Amino acid sequence: MDLARLAHKVTEETGIPVTPRDGERILAAVLASEDIWRIVELARIPILAVCAGLRALAAEGWLVWERGLIRLTPAGERACRELGLSPATELACPRCAGRGIETSLLDDLAARFSRIAAGRPEALQEFDQGYVTEETTIARIAFLLAHGDLAGKDLLVLGDDDLVSLAAALTGLPRRVAVLDADPRIPAFIADAARAEGLRIETYLHDLRQPLPGELQGRFDTFFCDPTESLRGFLVFAGRGISALRGPGGAGYLGLTHAEASLAKWKAIQEELLRWGAVLTELRDGFHRYANWPYVETMRSWPHLPVKRRPGPREPWYRSALLRIELVSEAAVDLGPVEGDIFEDDEAGTT
Amino acid sequence: MDLARLAHKVTEETGIPVTPRDGERILAAVLASEDIWRIVELARIPILAVCAGLRALAAEGWLVWERGLIRLTPAGERACRELGLSPATELACPRCAGRGIETSLLDDLAARFSRIAAGRPEALQEFDQGYVTEETTIARIAFLLAHGDLAGKDLLVLGDDDLVSLAAALTGLPRRVAVLDADPRIPAFIADAARAEGLRIETYLHDLRQPLPGELQGRFDTFFCDPTESLRGFLVFAGRGISALRGPGGAGYLGLTHAEASLAKWKAIQEELLRWGAVLTELRDGFHRYANWPYVETMRSWPHLPVKRRPGPREPWYRSALLRIELVSEAAVDLGPVEGDIFEDDEAGTT
Repeated sequence: MDLARLAHKVTEETGIPVTPRDGERILAAVLASEDIWRIVELARIPILAVCAGLRALAAEGWLVWERGLIRLTPAGERACRELGLSPATELACPRCAGRGIETSLLDDLAARFSRIAAGRPEALQEFDQGYVTEETTIARIAFLLAHGDLAGKDLLVLGDDDLVSLAAALTGLPRRVAVLDADPRIPAFIADAARAEGLRIETYLHDLRQPLPGELQGRFDTFFCDPTESLRGFLVFAGRGISALRGPGGAGYLGLTHAEASLAKWKAIQEELLRWGAVLTELRDGFHRYANWPYVETMRSWPHLPVKRRPGPREPWYRSALLRIELVSEAAVDLGPVEGDIFEDDEAGTT
Repeated sequence: MDLARLAHKVTEETGIPVTPRDGERILAAVLASEDIWRIVELARIPILAVCAGLRALAAEGWLVWERGLIRLTPAGERACRELGLSPATELACPRCAGRGIETSLLDDLAARFSRIAAGRPEALQEFDQGYVTEETTIARIAFLLAHGDLAGKDLLVLGDDDLVSLAAALTGLPRRVAVLDADPRIPAFIADAARAEGLRIETYLHDLRQPLPGELQGRFDTFFCDPTESLRGFLVFAGRGISALRGPGGAGYLGLTHAEASLAKWKAIQEELLRWGAVLTELRDGFHRYANWPYVETMRSWPHLPVKRRPGPREPWYRSALLRIELVSEAAVDLGPVEGDIFEDDEAGTT
């Protein structure tokens, strides 16, 4: 089987655009690990494409799974050699976990944040939740700080099971912090914590399928959001964020995975962001790590996994890139209310 | 003076698109350093815009320069406080210099590369040269390796005073390494070094204003180039690089500065890359540091600098982002021969 045929087969089966190069990514991940979750992490393509690819490779006799592990057969090893493939490697800096950002200045913040976050609401599938590790939230704050998007700025967080608004307000640096979420537990938790800590955070219960409340439009310097990843859902989140910015020089941060978004989807997203008047100024793949969520066995990709291990992954495996965008001209977002499910598309794997 | 007026004045004078936010960037840099080169580095906007901005701020009585240093006046300090500005901070990880990538596995490579590079040709203004530090070249190699773009791959380097082709070939990992440059000293030096080290590198003397030689078109998995930064020049380099790729899954690496490119230019570049069928998969600002070059006093921005110190900057100050792009569809580059100067535009500061 050549990789062009593999890519074609996976695309046929899943509806996800996959290249021969993505086939290499699956094999390079298998050369590096026998663990399904680590393979998904290293392959950096949609989880449903990884599953379909692994099955196709097994049908070809290149792979087997035994006792919950995925192993190359001698034929598979030979094929990898002939293709000139090497094990996937990350070469991530061990000090900053590959993020490039130093957080030691924020150790006090990290300790306070950790104490508060201990009582946080658990992630719910209904809202496509799944929060980043506490360490990741602190790294985000450091990143905003280093880009001049925190101190003295007005910050809006759109959807915040990650509690970015709390971490930001705890620094005492922003001028204004506002947060909205469709899950009533989130604004309630943040408002309670803010009260207990003597912080000022405006909280809103808001479904992003609706345009932002008028008093939040065009009033912020910075927005942060970690969107749901259907193409439509991602663009709704991003568009609402951009509509909150004052104008040129306003900055936005977004999370974007490989696990639920092909590079074709990445491209469609980037095209729209540019069309709306923004430019990408940073794109750090793998910046975010997510704590494992409790609904692994009901997520869409579960029945597709070639090996299932209970109670699910031991280590964080779900990651996402951090994008920073900045408006170069006045925002040109024309997004009215949207209806229906904004969580699903062919590539969604965790909803 | 408000920052909107400052931005307007700088744009009027220089023809460079500048936002009030860029005004904040200048002041935040001045709050962090008195050294003109460090201010340019931290401000992350075109050097000619920094110069014009500093002069406008001095005319307003916010700044003075004395004994080669740039200092805020009490009026300037008060204004910064009123604007809520803080000193620019980088929070770069000290282990990886903010790159996020671990290079210790490549220490032997670094030592061999350093020995060879000791005899390299000096940077020439005629070709808009200025090479990255050796440490930066090694970090690039590690980055390519971690993205699966080096081992077993065919690599083309377009313009190579950085000697990326040599460093790549020294790893023994690529299947093919080819390099082209318009400065005859570069292919000659690389060919000599390759011969002495027993490496196979194809070298070409080629002016990128012309399309690639037929035998290089559509034949590579990866290209690397650090383009000249006029908009036209950048796109010519990038377009030639893309035309060298086999197709979807092919990857390209590009360097892009703030010192000679406004975010408006970044946006124009990103739009074209997307139009050509590529997606951005990484954008790490500040990844590259450049060794200081010998032609500081004849570069275009020299007469504009408010303070001039001889013999020029002591530390590296010129940096650029590393972009990784990947083809999602067949390349759609339609670039014939181009004529005339491809080095100059309003934002160019070092040519």
